[in-house]
Amino acid sequence: MTTPAFIAVDWGTTRLRASLVDGAGAVLGTAQSDSGVQSVPAGGFPAALDAACAPWFAAHPGVPVLMAGMVGSRNGWVEAPYAPCPAGPGEIAARLLAVPGAGRDIRIVPGVDCRWADGAYDVMRGEETQALGTGLADGLLALPGTHGKWIEMRDGRIHRFATFVTGELFAAVSASFVGRLAELPHDDEAGAALAAEAARVPGGLTRGLFQARARALAGDLAPAGVRPFLSRLLVEAEIAGALDLFGRPDVVHLVAGEPQRSVYTAALAQRGLVVQDYDTPAITLAGLTMLMAART
Amino acid sequence: MTTPAFIAVDWGTTRLRASLVDGAGAVLGTAQSDSGVQSVPAGGFPAALDAACAPWFAAHPGVPVLMAGMVGSRNGWVEAPYAPCPAGPGEIAARLLAVPGAGRDIRIVPGVDCRWADGAYDVMRGEETQALGTGLADGLLALPGTHGKWIEMRDGRIHRFATFVTGELFAAVSASFVGRLAELPHDDEAGAALAAEAARVPGGLTRGLFQARARALAGDLAPAGVRPFLSRLLVEAEIAGALDLFGRPDVVHLVAGEPQRSVYTAALAQRGLVVQDYDTPAITLAGLTMLMAART
Repeated sequence: MTTPAFIAVDWGTTRLRASLVDGAGAVLGTAQSDSGVQSVPAGGFPAALDAACAPWFAAHPGVPVLMAGMVGSRNGWVEAPYAPCPAGPGEIAARLLAVPGAGRDIRIVPGVDCRWADGAYDVMRGEETQALGTGLADGLLALPGTHGKWIEMRDGRIHRFATFVTGELFAAVSASFVGRLAELPHDDEAGAALAAEAARVPGGLTRGLFQARARALAGDLAPAGVRPFLSRLLVEAEIAGALDLFGRPDVVHLVAGEPQRSVYTAALAQRGLVVQDYDTPAITLAGLTMLMAART
Repeated sequence: MTTPAFIAVDWGTTRLRASLVDGAGAVLGTAQSDSGVQSVPAGGFPAALDAACAPWFAAHPGVPVLMAGMVGSRNGWVEAPYAPCPAGPGEIAARLLAVPGAGRDIRIVPGVDCRWADGAYDVMRGEETQALGTGLADGLLALPGTHGKWIEMRDGRIHRFATFVTGELFAAVSASFVGRLAELPHDDEAGAALAAEAARVPGGLTRGLFQARARALAGDLAPAGVRPFLSRLLVEAEIAGALDLFGRPDVVHLVAGEPQRSVYTAALAQRGLVVQDYDTPAITLAGLTMLMAART
């Protein structure tokens, strides 16, 4: 039997995913739980980790643990201060935070923060590990989500990045003025034609949002097309903003599960951009393995 | 005593305002109530009007009534179909809707709708009366609000217009991801410096919204400055969108009460635009008086 090298933990707001990894990066076993950071009570982190990993701890008493994600936030187990941009495997590994009093070797990957020349400020936690895990040396990464990140990589380091609250805004807007319309089923077929058109609504987002309602009222947009229209509208605003900030690349490196992967791929393709896909669990594990190897 | 010519009613979503007007447009008396369209039960419109105007109806049994606003919407007293753009006093007055079975001469001003060449569609109800009431022949009107309108006037007619959901988005965003921050008091002093900077956040609204949180986290933005920052951010997005749609005018004709008047004036002035102010109740009355004179 192979000797495990470490336990890799991706511990986010809503979920914990753990993998037992050998020295070559092969996965010997996996575990997951719904004990996301937001549902763990104060002081409950050791028990939540034990619940997921107890058999591994029993079989391999000395195995070290490396954790990334919101577990290192102010509301997590221990707050791991941000590493500043530019940040590569060396800079981040040098700031791994050892959890005090854990009774075993448990370390937390710090998030990364970024101060732009114009004063804008940004933070990430978890995405830095995924970004490193892509192995991308130079290029533009898009990680859509509640707080989507666009990350510029240079020489294998996170050079700078920006957050777009696309997912959270979609939820807020759906709960608000789309009102009853938002309760209707999401039907991509019904929304496809106008969703593509949503890319071209001039006047910005505050006008475009009203178009979802006005054009449903006018009968242009089927009720089941309202959500795809809104979704595409917000995604287009994000993409336009990101290309404005980072410049237009030849390829966008996309880290997304469905349905975001399809929506972003369609929107990026419509702009003539090539999309390179990544598998989120695989790059998260690759990032943790890279940091485990780089730790001092 | 002057003989009243008509009762002018501005009946919106949350309020009813009535004025008894003489033939020269002078106001002989005013009344108002909280019986906005959203709080009037089905069939309750005649009683709600009587409650506000009963003394006038008793003293001047034949006095006609002209009403503008959401009272003519699908959820109002009677739905008054939209007049299409371009729409001036003649076109709108020709479509005044007589309320059937009212037992007196009660008419409702229709809203106006607008189909843009690119397929965008827009509607207004109430603002058409205010726009006419400004007396502006040619120029760009801004009427900020929950669903703010920008209206291009040509030859004394509403040529085309667009809606921006700035007020509604501010409420949705405040209720959502600004979270606890939004419960803090609005302090214009604390937000002033960064609010002006919010005008220049590149990357669009979905990035700018996150800046409110990130820069509060970084300590750049005092907690009481978060709401002014967000407000200014949304206002800037609206102004940028409107100038993109309508072109940059020399003067913006602004119809707004406080605090919108100050926020928009500061944002417009920062862009080097001259602002001409109007008093909302005065122009609403002027618009109704103009339509009363133009009716056939």
